[in-house]
Amino acid sequence: MNESVFNLVRNEHLQDKIVTAEEAALWIEHNMTLGLSGFTRAGDAKAIPMALVERAKREKSLFKVNVFTGASLGPEVDHFMAEAGIINKRLPFQADRSMRSKINSGEIVYIDQHLSHTAELIRNEVLEEIDFAIIEALAITEDGMIIPTTSVGNSAIFVQQAKNIIIELNVSHPGSFEGIHDVYLPAKQGERDPIPLKKVDDRIGTAGIPVDIEKIKGIVVTFQPDAASTIVPPDEETQEIADHLLTFLREEIKAGRLTEKLAPLQSGIGSVANAVFHGFLDSEFSDLEVYSEVLQDAVFDLLDAGKIRFASGCSITLSEEKGQNVYQNLDKYRDKLVLRPQEISNSPEIIRRLGLISINTAVECDIYGNVNSTHICGTKMMNGIGGSGDFARNARISIFVTKSIAKHGAISSIVPFVSHVDHTEHDVDVIITEQGYADLRGLSPRERVQVIITNCSHPMYRKQLLAYFEEALERGGQTPHVLEKAFSWHTNFAKNGTMLQEEGQLTGKH
Amino acid sequence: MNESVFNLVRNEHLQDKIVTAEEAALWIEHNMTLGLSGFTRAGDAKAIPMALVERAKREKSLFKVNVFTGASLGPEVDHFMAEAGIINKRLPFQADRSMRSKINSGEIVYIDQHLSHTAELIRNEVLEEIDFAIIEALAITEDGMIIPTTSVGNSAIFVQQAKNIIIELNVSHPGSFEGIHDVYLPAKQGERDPIPLKKVDDRIGTAGIPVDIEKIKGIVVTFQPDAASTIVPPDEETQEIADHLLTFLREEIKAGRLTEKLAPLQSGIGSVANAVFHGFLDSEFSDLEVYSEVLQDAVFDLLDAGKIRFASGCSITLSEEKGQNVYQNLDKYRDKLVLRPQEISNSPEIIRRLGLISINTAVECDIYGNVNSTHICGTKMMNGIGGSGDFARNARISIFVTKSIAKHGAISSIVPFVSHVDHTEHDVDVIITEQGYADLRGLSPRERVQVIITNCSHPMYRKQLLAYFEEALERGGQTPHVLEKAFSWHTNFAKNGTMLQEEGQLTGKH
Repeated sequence: MNESVFNLVRNEHLQDKIVTAEEAALWIEHNMTLGLSGFTRAGDAKAIPMALVERAKREKSLFKVNVFTGASLGPEVDHFMAEAGIINKRLPFQADRSMRSKINSGEIVYIDQHLSHTAELIRNEVLEEIDFAIIEALAITEDGMIIPTTSVGNSAIFVQQAKNIIIELNVSHPGSFEGIHDVYLPAKQGERDPIPLKKVDDRIGTAGIPVDIEKIKGIVVTFQPDAASTIVPPDEETQEIADHLLTFLREEIKAGRLTEKLAPLQSGIGSVANAVFHGFLDSEFSDLEVYSEVLQDAVFDLLDAGKIRFASGCSITLSEEKGQNVYQNLDKYRDKLVLRPQEISNSPEIIRRLGLISINTAVECDIYGNVNSTHICGTKMMNGIGGSGDFARNARISIFVTKSIAKHGAISSIVPFVSHVDHTEHDVDVIITEQGYADLRGLSPRERVQVIITNCSHPMYRKQLLAYFEEALERGGQTPHVLEKAFSWHTNFAKNGTMLQEEGQLTGKH
Repeated sequence: MNESVFNLVRNEHLQDKIVTAEEAALWIEHNMTLGLSGFTRAGDAKAIPMALVERAKREKSLFKVNVFTGASLGPEVDHFMAEAGIINKRLPFQADRSMRSKINSGEIVYIDQHLSHTAELIRNEVLEEIDFAIIEALAITEDGMIIPTTSVGNSAIFVQQAKNIIIELNVSHPGSFEGIHDVYLPAKQGERDPIPLKKVDDRIGTAGIPVDIEKIKGIVVTFQPDAASTIVPPDEETQEIADHLLTFLREEIKAGRLTEKLAPLQSGIGSVANAVFHGFLDSEFSDLEVYSEVLQDAVFDLLDAGKIRFASGCSITLSEEKGQNVYQNLDKYRDKLVLRPQEISNSPEIIRRLGLISINTAVECDIYGNVNSTHICGTKMMNGIGGSGDFARNARISIFVTKSIAKHGAISSIVPFVSHVDHTEHDVDVIITEQGYADLRGLSPRERVQVIITNCSHPMYRKQLLAYFEEALERGGQTPHVLEKAFSWHTNFAKNGTMLQEEGQLTGKH
């Protein structure tokens, strides 16, 4: 054992547990369930998954495992393990093209869960028992705590509930990550206390994950950075969305409903969410607080610019360039950052107590304010609901953003009836597109239609949306619909490659 | 002032505020917003609403008000005020035929909200400011606290936020109600503490609603009992649903996921929910706890039978017979009951902390586990979502019950795609019909289809459901659908009066 590893495995009982990834991979048996560290490609187990892929290539016999994680993982799991055909069941979130394709073909069984729910289901023994937790760590302390790396995710509950634990000790992460984490796990339901967190920067737990070291079967030393984030820079439309968000927030301040410090902000994963956060850079807002899941580039740009006072998350996922910059200067962020288990970052209790302003991305919205976050044309899974439901249901203001059209106008993101409902009309306060924003709070369904079509839909689809609504209105009801045409936009797209109807089709009933 | 009223208005500054309902009704102006006490026909303001109806008959000028409440109210508001055409906007729940009809015609603007959300929206000044809170009270204490009657509902937030308050001092309620309430209101979001409730019988607040007595503009003395509940007794199917629930719970105990004390139970409003609770009467279960919204007949039958140890609710709504029995013997229930604000009875924080078993009624479910709780054929409002979303999202086990068919088989309650989504696939753990139960936890969408069709759908619809799924499967996807036929069951019903297809229609694609 070399000296640096010796410094990182500080519990002497563990120092003879070091094995190779290949050795550890042989412990995994067909049909086992793995609980892997990692959230949004950050802090994920990497070496053993790749060793499993290699083993599967060598072995002829059937070999499949269930993979439970925090959220999406890097290519080792969500691309290579998926491609190798060794994943049976996957939960609760993914965002990989290969995996998506195998999910939609039915080859991989995918369970799409609210990111705050997985830990409860594991604790209540509703899901398969976890045979091996495989956890990327920065260090193991003398008293046997696992210090996580760039994410906490579901690692703490995996460690608590798994029969066996394997550590991937990743020496590529800067040691200064130690002390950034705050690990708090609620007790069983019915026996637990209130979660004592009252401010975004409260520390309520331990600096690492407490572990029964008897359960640690092996330690694999690795040196591989996280896969970089794949977000693309802001474009004209996402900039316009950001501008509308700022306008909405200024109106809230004018109305006396927010102060200039706003409220703690949450933003979903991906390029649009990142771009929208970026909009705060050139704004008058400062002293902002973030209480979110993944912390992306924009959060660190805002920290650099002195716009964000403190950011609480459950993972850090950065582009290659931003990552180098941040990790080489981690000390300057140490007192402005905390990483928590996703059960805490996404806790309904905390989200509601703090009164977050929550910003998530929609695949499509309908004229009544229902949101589809997951399914293309109601059938094909994109990524999953992630934490958007945890936040939207409990936030002070629940905002969904989307560009008003996709595929150069062939798809309208505002439709008569969303083809899959992830967020109901009850949970969607504000919709923002590059066209403008629709503030739906306190509006009945019929009232919402007007503001959504007028403020958010693309002009090329407005007439068509209004024609649908007018025909529906003749039938009456709290939520007027022409059910036989409710999905006609999607079926038209499937048939003709566009949701746009011919001019003559817009009027009359046919 | 007679002596009994003197005993009830114990703050001497208030004793000259007594007015008639007619006088008080004259204070209400066109376009004002009223915050009315009452939840599920219990503890609702009655006299001033009827005086408003009478005033509207006398006056020629336009006169409409917004009516905010806890949930559904008795006939004075939800029938007579609706019929009189003096309601502009109504929220967050109703269950009256007259009001429903005016909502569906668009005459009354109805905003259907999660019952835990209304208080937050009022506190954050998102909804209209409340001009008058009209609160039914049992008494006003010396230090100026309003003691509620048979419900707490949203009364506390109305009292806190309204510009003016009128008390309906209802002397028909037994004085022994005093001490049953526990009023706790969270502070503003971002400034609040954890809600300190850890057990169903914890008392965390005050025995009444603290009030600034300067805001009390008048006191109207009334003597009118609550409208009795309209639930119907259990029938064969609801008894079968109850039996399947008990079987499911026994299996959970066998699997070690529940103990014989189960977990605190929640049950929705209405006959089916009441009947399902009734099923516990002849079961082996005892020492049960209830943490629910409305406490209906079955809860008191179970208290009488010694099956329930303690029940926490936000209102008591009983049939005439049960009501007489309970209210004449209220003392014997005093240490087994507490009534809380709906913000606490329906708090996501508490529901999740306690780990409730939640049982709510579905209008229809789809083969993937989405639930419609509100809309007939996607358009016409029945009652509203009520608290079902507060519970389903946060419960330990979220159960939805429904009979598998309605209208003698013309309607299947299990359909390919629900015509309105109130509870998404992510929030529905178990579906129970008289046919059996489907445990959906940890299942992917395709896996759910099999158990829902096999265990829950009516045999007369099974072939038809399977034919839909098989056709959908050919198109693939995480959630296979034939979008152009997704609502064909509803449109068939509208056209032919039945969802049942001809035998020949079941096969092939057309």
